Amino acid sequence: MEEFDAETHPHRRLNPLTNEYVLVSPHRTKRPWLGQTEAPQILDLPQYDPACYLCPGNPRSGGQQNPVYEHTYTFVNDFSAVLPAPAPTSPAASHPLLTTRSVHGTCDVLIFHPRHDLTLARLVIPDIERVIEAWIRIYKQRGTQEGIKYVQIFENKGAIMGCSNPHPHGQVWSLSDVPTIAATEIASLRRYSLSDVTDSAAPKGPKGRPCLLCEYAHIEIAAPEAEARVVVKNDRWVAVVPWWATWPFEVLLLPYQRHVPSIADLTEDERVALAEILSKITIKYDNLFSCSFAYSMGIHQRPIPAPESDAADDEDEDNITHLHLHFYPPLLRSASVKKFLVGFELMAEAQRDLTPEQAARKLRACSEVHYLHSN
Amino acid sequence: MEEFDAETHPHRRLNPLTNEYVLVSPHRTKRPWLGQTEAPQILDLPQYDPACYLCPGNPRSGGQQNPVYEHTYTFVNDFSAVLPAPAPTSPAASHPLLTTRSVHGTCDVLIFHPRHDLTLARLVIPDIERVIEAWIRIYKQRGTQEGIKYVQIFENKGAIMGCSNPHPHGQVWSLSDVPTIAATEIASLRRYSLSDVTDSAAPKGPKGRPCLLCEYAHIEIAAPEAEARVVVKNDRWVAVVPWWATWPFEVLLLPYQRHVPSIADLTEDERVALAEILSKITIKYDNLFSCSFAYSMGIHQRPIPAPESDAADDEDEDNITHLHLHFYPPLLRSASVKKFLVGFELMAEAQRDLTPEQAARKLRACSEVHYLHSN
Ligand SMILES: O=P(O)(O)O[C@H]1O[C@H](CO)[C@@H](O)[C@H](O)[C@H]1O
Ligand SMILES: O=P(O)(O)O[C@H]1O[C@H](CO)[C@@H](O)[C@H](O)[C@H]1O
Repeated sequence: MEEFDAETHPHRRLNPLTNEYVLVSPHRTKRPWLGQTEAPQILDLPQYDPACYLCPGNPRSGGQQNPVYEHTYTFVNDFSAVLPAPAPTSPAASHPLLTTRSVHGTCDVLIFHPRHDLTLARLVIPDIERVIEAWIRIYKQRGTQEGIKYVQIFENKGAIMGCSNPHPHGQVWSLSDVPTIAATEIASLRRYSLSDVTDSAAPKGPKGRPCLLCEYAHIEIAAPEAEARVVVKNDRWVAVVPWWATWPFEVLLLPYQRHVPSIADLTEDERVALAEILSKITIKYDNLFSCSFAYSMGIHQRPIPAPESDAADDEDEDNITHLHLHFYPPLLRSASVKKFLVGFELMAEAQRDLTPEQAARKLRACSEVHYLHSN
Repeated sequence: MEEFDAETHPHRRLNPLTNEYVLVSPHRTKRPWLGQTEAPQILDLPQYDPACYLCPGNPRSGGQQNPVYEHTYTFVNDFSAVLPAPAPTSPAASHPLLTTRSVHGTCDVLIFHPRHDLTLARLVIPDIERVIEAWIRIYKQRGTQEGIKYVQIFENKGAIMGCSNPHPHGQVWSLSDVPTIAATEIASLRRYSLSDVTDSAAPKGPKGRPCLLCEYAHIEIAAPEAEARVVVKNDRWVAVVPWWATWPFEVLLLPYQRHVPSIADLTEDERVALAEILSKITIKYDNLFSCSFAYSMGIHQRPIPAPESDAADDEDEDNITHLHLHFYPPLLRSASVKKFLVGFELMAEAQRDLTPEQAARKLRACSEVHYLHSN
């Protein structure tokens, strides 16, 4: 095997100040830039764009050709931030302040729909169900790949959220380590599961222990009208602007009827209910400022169980995670004024202007019929 | 005193997933928006702009009038994110997942220079020294204010970093709590000071214990040419693209000859040397893509010692902090292509493309004469 070279091979570095890792992907410097440069949003998209590398039948930048897919379509990112195993092992650190860890994995791209001009907010429920099924398929498939510990599903929507192509798509980065933020969340879920906060009637986690997120969903559903942070709810899922929201119209979406570690554990009913509520959230988002609302969305869930553990065991430690989706949208006041998370936020602490309750109230007031379809 | 009202009074909320607080400032929803909306940078600024609320003699949005100041000028932000004491105390949490803390403080604005068209990169050294003296003055002054625990100095430069006015200025937010990121860093510095990593000849922290940042600066200065992350160095200060940099051309600037807890501890020599190196860094930044380089800059240092502690005691626990400045610039490839820290970065882990060593090499290669002054 080739020797490790920090300027060629992706790897992670530890920030000893925050005790967090950073993923370094030097080979990515070669990818072409197709995104916009702080330009206004294009509103009038064609259903098919011959220049789009995600449209059915079109060539991609790597030279491959997309099939004429009819629903969703998945392929490996032509400019992946991590590369598959075997990966060269990084040398031992010459000093604890210069620590490196090796990393490998796969970056998948998931196209949501053949039509170039649609988004989740404008897909019919059965098409959103197909996206959910694709997420589950990728989560399971990448989970069987050697050494993969975490499958991070996400969507960057809108040019201001770094999305380089408006064709509806998301990404899935599968890694040989549980990434920093997921690991931090899991540590918190674990701590909570060992605590004695069991005074609610919320569903319980493995071994009958408290689950932070089951408990939280339960509190939010029971909250008095005046403090309501719930945006929309169906018989399985609840979407709230969380108590601790950083982004102006941040939303946390989670199942509340039972403890659910991952998307692979969802029942048929829960999948359909997820498609329905995803449709409602994204429609409300578009209606808020009458635009195609930008956001980053991500799914946090169970890490891939170690091969020796019994994955079928519901009492397994890994089950302390409770499936949830985060939406981080940047817009603050209108289709063109976003919240900047800069100086103070980067150096000191997240800062927001309107309260989560105000944001939730505004989102609740938005119609569940998309503004482009309402007349 | 008025009762606490979450929709009126600034407060902080705990994110139990990350165990971090978010500062909520509901009253800020009233401030006017003067910033650009993702538009290209304005290059041809006048020396004086009659419409600028920071230019000498001009009226501000709050109705006050700026004096005809000659060097720096400081005033309280007309739309502060925190308000001075006494602040109403927030009620006890109804559930541990809905925890609130009260907060008070002051947001100052510091104008660097009367000229509307200049930036740190284009100020002469004596004018940068005046900015440093103003930082020290505010740090000391706010530190004597009741209950203030931390003074966060920062600068948002450039419209793409949320700066609403190109007139050269920074901000200082002084708070009754040590904010999340500073607290995390301090915890890491404390942990390191209690460790046994004492094998280098680096300066030591209080009680002769190791200091993470003194040690780190020492390693970087000694690093072999091929791995050099040092961008520029003088006899007191060193600027590096840190091993763990997240932003493409991130820079960490710190004194390396002795352990220095805060800007109030700087000697005359160290202040002059800081002005010199700040000039060099910001000039190199502008030269990198021949533009007025955007960034967020922040100063991390010693929290305000509790009144009962002996602030003059060098062995004081608070002295474990080592003064340093972070520069987080978003540009990646050119004056118009930035790095987006979005989906994966927000959900999983910071991700960068070029290595810190490559970035340091590019910055080292930039001239120390500003491109606008070089002919
Ligand atoms: O106070 P300003 O300059 O109007 O606002 C800017 O800096 C603040 C502190 O980093 C941020 O909270 C704002 O989002 C940003 O636009
Ligand atoms: O992979 P893409 O869509 O080209 O790139 C986008 O998403 C990535 C993952 O969040 C980010 O690292 C990039 O900065 C962003 O532009």
